[in-house]
Amino acid sequence: MNYKAVLKNIYQTIIAEENEGKVATYIPELAKVNSENFGVHFLSVDTEEHGIGDWQKKFSIQSISKVISLSLAYKIFGDTIWERVGVEPSGTAFNSLVQLESDHGIPRNPFINAGAMVICDMLVTHLKNPKADFLAYVKEICNCDQIQYSETVARSEASIGYRNKALCNYIKSFGNIKNDPKDVLDFYFNMCSIEMNCKELSKTFMFLANSNFKTSKGEKLLNTSKTKRVNAIMQTCGFYDESGEFSFKVGLPGKSGVGGGIVAVHPDRYCITVWSPKLNEKGNSYRGMKFLEAFTTVTELSIF
Amino acid sequence: MNYKAVLKNIYQTIIAEENEGKVATYIPELAKVNSENFGVHFLSVDTEEHGIGDWQKKFSIQSISKVISLSLAYKIFGDTIWERVGVEPSGTAFNSLVQLESDHGIPRNPFINAGAMVICDMLVTHLKNPKADFLAYVKEICNCDQIQYSETVARSEASIGYRNKALCNYIKSFGNIKNDPKDVLDFYFNMCSIEMNCKELSKTFMFLANSNFKTSKGEKLLNTSKTKRVNAIMQTCGFYDESGEFSFKVGLPGKSGVGGGIVAVHPDRYCITVWSPKLNEKGNSYRGMKFLEAFTTVTELSIF
Amino acid sequence: MNYKAVLKNIYQTIIAEENEGKVATYIPELAKVNSENFGVHFLSVDTEEHGIGDWQKKFSIQSISKVISLSLAYKIFGDTIWERVGVEPSGTAFNSLVQLESDHGIPRNPFINAGAMVICDMLVTHLKNPKADFLAYVKEICNCDQIQYSETVARSEASIGYRNKALCNYIKSFGNIKNDPKDVLDFYFNMCSIEMNCKELSKTFMFLANSNFKTSKGEKLLNTSKTKRVNAIMQTCGFYDESGEFSFKVGLPGKSGVGGGIVAVHPDRYCITVWSPKLNEKGNSYRGMKFLEAFTTVTELSIF
Amino acid sequence: MNYKAVLKNIYQTIIAEENEGKVATYIPELAKVNSENFGVHFLSVDTEEHGIGDWQKKFSIQSISKVISLSLAYKIFGDTIWERVGVEPSGTAFNSLVQLESDHGIPRNPFINAGAMVICDMLVTHLKNPKADFLAYVKEICNCDQIQYSETVARSEASIGYRNKALCNYIKSFGNIKNDPKDVLDFYFNMCSIEMNCKELSKTFMFLANSNFKTSKGEKLLNTSKTKRVNAIMQTCGFYDESGEFSFKVGLPGKSGVGGGIVAVHPDRYCITVWSPKLNEKGNSYRGMKFLEAFTTVTELSIF
Repeated sequence: MNYKAVLKNIYQTIIAEENEGKVATYIPELAKVNSENFGVHFLSVDTEEHGIGDWQKKFSIQSISKVISLSLAYKIFGDTIWERVGVEPSGTAFNSLVQLESDHGIPRNPFINAGAMVICDMLVTHLKNPKADFLAYVKEICNCDQIQYSETVARSEASIGYRNKALCNYIKSFGNIKNDPKDVLDFYFNMCSIEMNCKELSKTFMFLANSNFKTSKGEKLLNTSKTKRVNAIMQTCGFYDESGEFSFKVGLPGKSGVGGGIVAVHPDRYCITVWSPKLNEKGNSYRGMKFLEAFTTVTELSIF
Repeated sequence: MNYKAVLKNIYQTIIAEENEGKVATYIPELAKVNSENFGVHFLSVDTEEHGIGDWQKKFSIQSISKVISLSLAYKIFGDTIWERVGVEPSGTAFNSLVQLESDHGIPRNPFINAGAMVICDMLVTHLKNPKADFLAYVKEICNCDQIQYSETVARSEASIGYRNKALCNYIKSFGNIKNDPKDVLDFYFNMCSIEMNCKELSKTFMFLANSNFKTSKGEKLLNTSKTKRVNAIMQTCGFYDESGEFSFKVGLPGKSGVGGGIVAVHPDRYCITVWSPKLNEKGNSYRGMKFLEAFTTVTELSIF
Repeated sequence: MNYKAVLKNIYQTIIAEENEGKVATYIPELAKVNSENFGVHFLSVDTEEHGIGDWQKKFSIQSISKVISLSLAYKIFGDTIWERVGVEPSGTAFNSLVQLESDHGIPRNPFINAGAMVICDMLVTHLKNPKADFLAYVKEICNCDQIQYSETVARSEASIGYRNKALCNYIKSFGNIKNDPKDVLDFYFNMCSIEMNCKELSKTFMFLANSNFKTSKGEKLLNTSKTKRVNAIMQTCGFYDESGEFSFKVGLPGKSGVGGGIVAVHPDRYCITVWSPKLNEKGNSYRGMKFLEAFTTVTELSIF
Repeated sequence: MNYKAVLKNIYQTIIAEENEGKVATYIPELAKVNSENFGVHFLSVDTEEHGIGDWQKKFSIQSISKVISLSLAYKIFGDTIWERVGVEPSGTAFNSLVQLESDHGIPRNPFINAGAMVICDMLVTHLKNPKADFLAYVKEICNCDQIQYSETVARSEASIGYRNKALCNYIKSFGNIKNDPKDVLDFYFNMCSIEMNCKELSKTFMFLANSNFKTSKGEKLLNTSKTKRVNAIMQTCGFYDESGEFSFKVGLPGKSGVGGGIVAVHPDRYCITVWSPKLNEKGNSYRGMKFLEAFTTVTELSIF
């Protein structure tokens, strides 16, 4: 398979078409990004690598970070984490409070905001210096040094994140947040504010694609079974209430963020990251979805 | 991989453990089945084949039939079917009416009852003799002659299926059923009443596993893209509100029925059917779930 | 109080203003009515009586009939009826199925469609000739002979009443309908099709206003406590999800129907009926609501 | 009517019966109250007055305060308040977040927590010293000097009120809270912590019963129409999802609080306050509900 040619071809087709959708504006800082950024980075398990367009520019990874925090909590606590968060798709928007009421404070899955907060709460409890330790972990699995939180974005979201504050206090009212909601939210907003470029994201997600993956310290992150399970949750829950659509059209496990990034993983083959800030009405990158659908259609490679 | 040994080993382990759950009783006829039946049939794309236990006994395939009707409608109407039914997991029980209200009569996916009825409605409109033509289609893709509806089971469900009647009339009230609800329900109850054994089911689902599949008439059923998409929907929606759990634990696309059957598909590798009538509280075969989780864990083969 | 002058004055004011809203079209027969009809009939407990405009024209009383069937069931079965239907406002539209799911088939109150069907089911069980006996009862409390079902309207609604069929089958699935849904629906559609004029409605509802009320056979219908309780349910539940608004603006117990009729009761003082077919977006008569708000505001007479 | 004898008689009957229900424990301070307290105070518009049992003991009025804050906001802002809060019963529990989602942040009515917070937000915006000014207002309409906030109770609720914090932040996320949620919640928790005895509550609510009511400064609080409208909202919304039941059984507008108090108003006749801390499962005073049902049944006096 000539991946390079396929990637280039799709990129050129899509960049020539209208760039629909809207940049996320609910976080004031994110609204400032140039909406025409468009980057792609492909990394195979045998280290074939292709970057196109704005693949070296940093962007806010936002919800994509939830996969990283899940992997850390899963590594630390094992399957006990599933007592406090489910693995079912939610069928509703990413920040819905409705389901929490009927589910008595147990979020449906770790990728809706509520579930990610419960995972953050576990890490806040366990890590000595939660923010510093988490960042060190990210750098380790990415094997890159140049990764930072964006204080500006974190503060920007904290300043208007009333719905997330509502969510966190609501889960606390059910007893499924153990720490002070303020501390959990501070960790959560920082985690979401991490900035990476497409290449760093592809590298970071390699632990889900490559069964021989080792961290920069030579450590295996998750065993085979746990790795498969994280992929399975991405497959069913990675795109909020468009998860079925992504699975249907792209056929790969993946995760999106409102910064416009999407990472998809083809186990035993490759990671691919696409970044384009304009979002469709479900909150997923318009060009990102389009690119990945075309990619798996043309290559006829998906997990199905 | 010595599939035979693995299958046998898991079968013996599970049959020695307590058989929890309950046989479905809401369809009176189904309640009569012997709850200790336990059959497995494995069929690889290169025709390696293993049957264990009650793999030759017929049982009511129930909702597993929804994959077959979907494939027929998809073949006939192509992607226009997605105007009337979605591809998102529902997050709620299989016969919930709540979501239909907020979704204005467009069922979330073709595998919840509401969605399957919309698919049935399409077939009732298009087929000359809906029941006869559908059965002929089933026989063709299974390449077996000995397949029948169970009039007893269909009548039994019709006699008490008030919730399904409610569903069908409700969708009709939104205009998303075109025929008389009575005719659609008659087709639906018959379709669910089809009886097969494990081997016949494995053979029937081979069109989703084998990219070179041809029907008994030498016809390719669905092209690669459509085949992958049916698998993707099974992955996210095949087990009602336990779809995430199945994806998480088993990691394969599959479909269950309240008769206690489960078929799972590993694209390009195999189909596997397990049948055991006792259901867990989500309505999926207790031993079926257990068997398949063990099978993909031991073989370390799943799509992820 | 010079009721006559007040009524006339308000009538003239309102008829001079634009007649907003829309005639109900979901029952084809109802769509044929002249939307400019506008009648009022006032009847005090001491038999002062005023008719204005189209007060002698018959119209389809629709949901107003639910108060009459409730009174008959309450008379026959006493407080046991509350085991099968509640007395709480629903907070949702009149034909919502959502609440029934969380309430396990016990409708919130007897004035939403679901609750009225449960009341109808009780009457179908108890009455020898349900339709004939119910009509006789209506004539008796109204003390009028010229009251009939409209076969045309009943058939018209039956032909398209898929949502009501869904509701009835749904309640049946919870076991809270005892008869065949077909028979219950036939009774229900007929009951709603009763035609009366404003005067007949005012007379019919006098048993809720006049504590000395006797039927044409000299019988007291409901005792004081039961009478008050029916009024209380009309107060909180008589106008679907506009019940609070009616209570707030008009301050009287009352009941509306999609035919455009509204009856309001001031206990120990009067009954008043207004009819005007155009409905506001909540399904209540636009001019009816306006008239009654003006009437209780001008007279400064409400129950509060 | 010999009110005194009737009241005494009912009191003695009920005190002899088992005192079911549970004292509210979710606010730690409230859990400390003696659950056998039982007081009644009756005050007619012509100043007939009867106190029985613990009518002189102070208790936490909690949600009863929501009627007082509503009256102040209504007086200040007039009917513009209804742009930010509705008048419909909610059909759900007092602290539900679900409806807010479908209603886009407009609470159903001013007596559910969400609605009361919106009213508090208006007062926080308008009053110079919100807490001091509000207390002065309460003293003025009660014509009593000895009324205070309980700092202990307010702090106690603030320390655990995660669900209320969730609610307030959630409404803020829709833009229907203008101030900092912290300030609104501080006002809200203080308002709910006001302590009164039965007599003070009866006196405070006299402005809703007596059309000639004047405050201690000789001011008419609300005009006739506004007074009736507050009563109407109490009638339909005063008891959370037991409002219909209270209307049905008692037939008077009223308001309850989790401190075990209930005030009921018979317009043009009397106010009556009952206090007994044990609550039924809907969160309303067990003995309070029982007492008032008996009182209006025996006297055959209700608004219906």
